[in-house]
Amino acid sequence: MRVICTRCGKEREGMEVTCNRCGGPFKLDIDLPFSKEIRLNFPYIKDWVSLGEWNSPMIKGDLFYKLDFMNPTGSYKDRGSTTMISYLKQSGIKEIAEDSSGNAGASVAAYGAAAGMKVSIFVPSTARGNKVRQIQAYGASIVKVEGNRDDVSRAARESGLYHASHILQPHFRDGIRSLAYEIVRDLGWRKPEEVYVPVSAGTLLLGMYEGFRHMANEGVIKEIPKIVAVQTEQVSPLCAKINHVNYNPPEKLTSIADALVSTNPTLLPEMLNAIKDGECVTVSDQEILEAWKILARKGLLVEYSSATTLAGHMKNKGSNNAVLVLTGSGLKTLS
Amino acid sequence: MRVICTRCGKEREGMEVTCNRCGGPFKLDIDLPFSKEIRLNFPYIKDWVSLGEWNSPMIKGDLFYKLDFMNPTGSYKDRGSTTMISYLKQSGIKEIAEDSSGNAGASVAAYGAAAGMKVSIFVPSTARGNKVRQIQAYGASIVKVEGNRDDVSRAARESGLYHASHILQPHFRDGIRSLAYEIVRDLGWRKPEEVYVPVSAGTLLLGMYEGFRHMANEGVIKEIPKIVAVQTEQVSPLCAKINHVNYNPPEKLTSIADALVSTNPTLLPEMLNAIKDGECVTVSDQEILEAWKILARKGLLVEYSSATTLAGHMKNKGSNNAVLVLTGSGLKTLS
Repeated sequence: MRVICTRCGKEREGMEVTCNRCGGPFKLDIDLPFSKEIRLNFPYIKDWVSLGEWNSPMIKGDLFYKLDFMNPTGSYKDRGSTTMISYLKQSGIKEIAEDSSGNAGASVAAYGAAAGMKVSIFVPSTARGNKVRQIQAYGASIVKVEGNRDDVSRAARESGLYHASHILQPHFRDGIRSLAYEIVRDLGWRKPEEVYVPVSAGTLLLGMYEGFRHMANEGVIKEIPKIVAVQTEQVSPLCAKINHVNYNPPEKLTSIADALVSTNPTLLPEMLNAIKDGECVTVSDQEILEAWKILARKGLLVEYSSATTLAGHMKNKGSNNAVLVLTGSGLKTLS
Repeated sequence: MRVICTRCGKEREGMEVTCNRCGGPFKLDIDLPFSKEIRLNFPYIKDWVSLGEWNSPMIKGDLFYKLDFMNPTGSYKDRGSTTMISYLKQSGIKEIAEDSSGNAGASVAAYGAAAGMKVSIFVPSTARGNKVRQIQAYGASIVKVEGNRDDVSRAARESGLYHASHILQPHFRDGIRSLAYEIVRDLGWRKPEEVYVPVSAGTLLLGMYEGFRHMANEGVIKEIPKIVAVQTEQVSPLCAKINHVNYNPPEKLTSIADALVSTNPTLLPEMLNAIKDGECVTVSDQEILEAWKILARKGLLVEYSSATTLAGHMKNKGSNNAVLVLTGSGLKTLS
């Protein structure tokens, strides 16, 4: 499968992280027949670094809930880590840097450990808490960086280690195609009317979109289901563009949905394309908290950032034939 | 399926928690043909209260690891909660009491919530931490009781609420048969040579044993695999009996394996029967910590109590054809 720049179409030459012509991000060119044997849709992986990811349960209540927090490290990010780390391993890479103090950092640390890699996770100097402890438990080094999110990312990029960025590496985002395949499979190879996902850096939205697009192109489903992106009022760059409203991120983010922090996402142009037939909804902290409680009282314990999907569905008066992707485990945020 | 007293054989009359002739615990009498459609082996459930439990991944490294911490509430207890709560719900019970400040309490709280029940979880007055917060997140009431573990249990039993005890309710233990079925299925319908499980109150050991016994009786496997029970040095009543050593539990338990606390388990006679062709190994805190680190450095983050299985396997110089059941998520114990 070819790896091409999403912006200028240039093919990736080797392991460069971004296009060396235009600086754009890469993606996989999905030009293969669809297989119901889901892993066969990722033929570039010869030998999987696996921790038991994918095939999360889908349960039906009033809506459909895809329990993607039931991945090995407690978040959907494992869908991308398994493909990215497997690919990097077979490409001979043994030491990596990633920048994330959250679920992505923990996931890359776990899969990097499973692959026998030396992993350094770059985080803001203020980062603390359970997710940082989780990263350390897997044996990764934490590198604290002064400055803002961009400074942390730059430090990882310029560290001399290979930059296994969950945002930029095409094989990370590509692994999230598996989510779209499973949603359609879990519904008996039918598409739902709507799918709700939280959106921050855009990896979930973009990866899932490519999976639906693949199935639509191959005739597995007639068309891509309506994707509803949910963002917080504080961090809503995608909603602002889609809904044509002004957006000025606050100086300091205080939302309880603390995994949704991308105020100025690199992948915004790609997201605008993926959501063009969908919608973007913003939700307040109070709406998130209410939705979180409703989920917990059904026995579904997620992190606040994941409860945005139910908050968005409630605000939107969404369809009953909707899938809510519950992305992150509430077990990490109990204390 | 009949429900019978494990000690005097008397059939259960209604919903009594223990035998009203001899006070013994009940169990299901597994007298049905084995079905590869695993849920069909639980024909007494008409309508499942489900949160996406069972079918946890089995991964192969140097050994086989059954990732049972990847159940909805982060522990294998969900295998029993789904059957017990489903059964209680269809029996018309709407309010329950359970005694546990740990994974069992959290699991019963979650499934009780999913069933729309009012759940009270009785805990020692000193209980705190993430598992108590998890119980509360699901909306259960925490009832703090002064005294020792037996006092807490008595308070739940005498509360006037129906006592949905994970230790005594036969339909809880019975749900754990599913684990044995899955282990054999995951290995291509072959039995492993050895299976390692942590043992405290005995529900895991006994439930799993019944599943293997069922498959052996039905000719699915030739014989029950060797079961190796692992206990801590501080809490080793089963190992003491099996290995004929003296056992005096310490006044205060300080082991890092803080889910293994049953110094005087009610189900000890039943456990002795289940382990008669197996072994029991005790491990020290240092051995547990070393095993925990090895697992985490493979990307498998469990609680210390679950790492006892690897510690036991290392101490035992166990077979390569061994399954280690990893019972509880390390995400609950990060802080």
